[in-house]
Amino acid sequence: MNPTLEIFSQGEEIVTGQTVDTNATWLSQACMTMGFTVSRHTAVGDRLDELIALLKEISTRADCCICTGGLGPTSDDLTAEAASLAFSMPLQFDAKAFEQIANFFKNRGRTMPESNRKQAYLPSGALRIDNQWGTAPGFTLQYNRCRFVFLPGVPFEMQHLFNEFVKCFFERHYALNPKQLVTLKTIGIGESDIQTAIADITIPPEIQLGFRTGPDHIETKLLAPAQYPRHKLDVFIDTIKSRLGNYIFGINDDHNHCDDLPSTIDKMMRNQQRTAIFIETISQGLMTAKCAIGNDWLLETHYQCSPERLANRFAVSFGDMDLPNQAKKIANAARIQSSADLVLIQLYQKDNTLNDKDRYITIYNALLSSEGYWHTSHAIGGPVKRKQNQAALLALDLLRRYLQNIN
Amino acid sequence: MNPTLEIFSQGEEIVTGQTVDTNATWLSQACMTMGFTVSRHTAVGDRLDELIALLKEISTRADCCICTGGLGPTSDDLTAEAASLAFSMPLQFDAKAFEQIANFFKNRGRTMPESNRKQAYLPSGALRIDNQWGTAPGFTLQYNRCRFVFLPGVPFEMQHLFNEFVKCFFERHYALNPKQLVTLKTIGIGESDIQTAIADITIPPEIQLGFRTGPDHIETKLLAPAQYPRHKLDVFIDTIKSRLGNYIFGINDDHNHCDDLPSTIDKMMRNQQRTAIFIETISQGLMTAKCAIGNDWLLETHYQCSPERLANRFAVSFGDMDLPNQAKKIANAARIQSSADLVLIQLYQKDNTLNDKDRYITIYNALLSSEGYWHTSHAIGGPVKRKQNQAALLALDLLRRYLQNIN
Repeated sequence: MNPTLEIFSQGEEIVTGQTVDTNATWLSQACMTMGFTVSRHTAVGDRLDELIALLKEISTRADCCICTGGLGPTSDDLTAEAASLAFSMPLQFDAKAFEQIANFFKNRGRTMPESNRKQAYLPSGALRIDNQWGTAPGFTLQYNRCRFVFLPGVPFEMQHLFNEFVKCFFERHYALNPKQLVTLKTIGIGESDIQTAIADITIPPEIQLGFRTGPDHIETKLLAPAQYPRHKLDVFIDTIKSRLGNYIFGINDDHNHCDDLPSTIDKMMRNQQRTAIFIETISQGLMTAKCAIGNDWLLETHYQCSPERLANRFAVSFGDMDLPNQAKKIANAARIQSSADLVLIQLYQKDNTLNDKDRYITIYNALLSSEGYWHTSHAIGGPVKRKQNQAALLALDLLRRYLQNIN
Repeated sequence: MNPTLEIFSQGEEIVTGQTVDTNATWLSQACMTMGFTVSRHTAVGDRLDELIALLKEISTRADCCICTGGLGPTSDDLTAEAASLAFSMPLQFDAKAFEQIANFFKNRGRTMPESNRKQAYLPSGALRIDNQWGTAPGFTLQYNRCRFVFLPGVPFEMQHLFNEFVKCFFERHYALNPKQLVTLKTIGIGESDIQTAIADITIPPEIQLGFRTGPDHIETKLLAPAQYPRHKLDVFIDTIKSRLGNYIFGINDDHNHCDDLPSTIDKMMRNQQRTAIFIETISQGLMTAKCAIGNDWLLETHYQCSPERLANRFAVSFGDMDLPNQAKKIANAARIQSSADLVLIQLYQKDNTLNDKDRYITIYNALLSSEGYWHTSHAIGGPVKRKQNQAALLALDLLRRYLQNIN
């Protein structure tokens, strides 16, 4: 029987709907993969009595609980105080924690505000979790049947503390049966089309099939028990791979690591020692912004607010050319002007439907190299920021397909 | 005293982290604005005993509860059954609900699967909430002190049912006092420095002071009861404004609307009929990407991966100039080459510390107009994606200060 684990999020901004609680999602996935049974999420605001009641409640119900948020320096950060009152562990000044907080400011050439001193008070008997990424140390303690872990609510600090301390701590303290998780990452195909494409594959009940639609890509996940034979799991993975084909840009499992589309592209551009220039329109800088920061392969990016300015910039004239021909003309001019191996360009018909979330616009992506010319065209809809994001990703995906040699 | 409201989300996909619970966020915002005190979010998976226990628990604790999910046709959709058992209200076949479900399929030319019949069984004594957007009717019932509203988990169905039924129902059943919320939005100053700056201002206990640190800006929030006199509230707002000064880029309340820094800039650029060009380095497209999409005032953006390429592009030579002088030289050349009123440029010393989250880099922003030349310099740290984001925002903030005439 796997130990049960609850996620408890503290913060008025979560309960009042100012912030989406992505920490709970991230932690649930991480802990479930480790072998916990995640049984409940709870979020409450900044009220001391509620926090105390909830901590006591959880201590009798779960084997483990991860609490995020409420460890900041301000008066509405009440988690350490609530834990100290709920578990009768008075707050104690932790000199080492204070030194770390003071150093955090010192290293950045800043004076530590007096309010940050508060973050060095931890419940007596708690084990401190050092935080090199922010000012709030985490801590862990046992009460009743439950092991509590308290982490800051800032996602990247929380994730660092989890990956670099909590994970090993759990592995030492619990007999966990980590599951096997294989994630197929796709772009350019919707969740329901994925489901339709694989609907007739019979997957045994002990393997859990799940989907996660993010803003940038969709993940198809297979979760199998630790003892499930890998070669049998591979049969299902291969079948799904054959159905989803070139929409898959990467796979994540014990042997492979794939973060996202831009990091996949970054790796290939470096390995293949290519250089590129981007010409952006509706993606308005986002193609460039998504790429690995400070990379040396993206030589330059051009953004111009109108086709006239773009034509002017590359000293070409469009006449009454359509988008495909405009793109080809600019790509050729840009390739001659720059020393880049590849030119990636995106054009669209600018009109007043851009801000209408119910209207679709058509984007046209083209890639020019010494070997040839490739292009794609897509209709994209939704709010304007979604259109921008989709436009950037679909252009980058053309580059990915070229680099993976699957155009 | 505002009625308390809890959000209860049912679904294994939420508890295991496959899905981010955006329903809870959406409902919390909607209900808080209406005047409810949202006190807790809870999510549990597909276990009948847990669902029953939780419903009973909430019935004694909250005045109102909105439950989403678990109303589908499959065997793991247990919400109606759980409610019927928790509240001793046996499930009854609702002929009208069944007719609506059957019509939903008929209108789409599809045969109704037998499993959907289950969705027509509602707890006896519950009031049905018609669903024209899907097959799962919602329902509402009272138990103990709590009014429960059960809605389907599909976001757009849930939102339709809320907007078109639940909202009016709540307005009729509760004497709601929507609160006064004033939000001051700042950039360039940390949460603890804000706290220190306003620490000595005595705010009456009926006004709730809160902070929300987002990736792009920090919000200082004052939440006052509906009947609190606005002129008295304004005294505190004015005092906080005087302390935070030019760090405030916008204020949100009943009279003013401010989304974020880019939309504030967009409004001013359009009102003042100015045009600009951007020259980006470490922000790598993100300054441009953050601006209103398809705007006509940002004429062009240049990104070059190295100072050499940048100098080349603008036909200048740097010699052994420092960043401030390099920026001035390029800004002048760019202003002559383009027809833009304003040139916004950001430079930084590119070295191998960029990807080191513990190292700070120094960025240098400059703005050139016909009226003069302004510049700022900042040390920014953290993971590389955070550095990129901060760099983009701090450059845009120089433009904002220029447009607000507070350089």
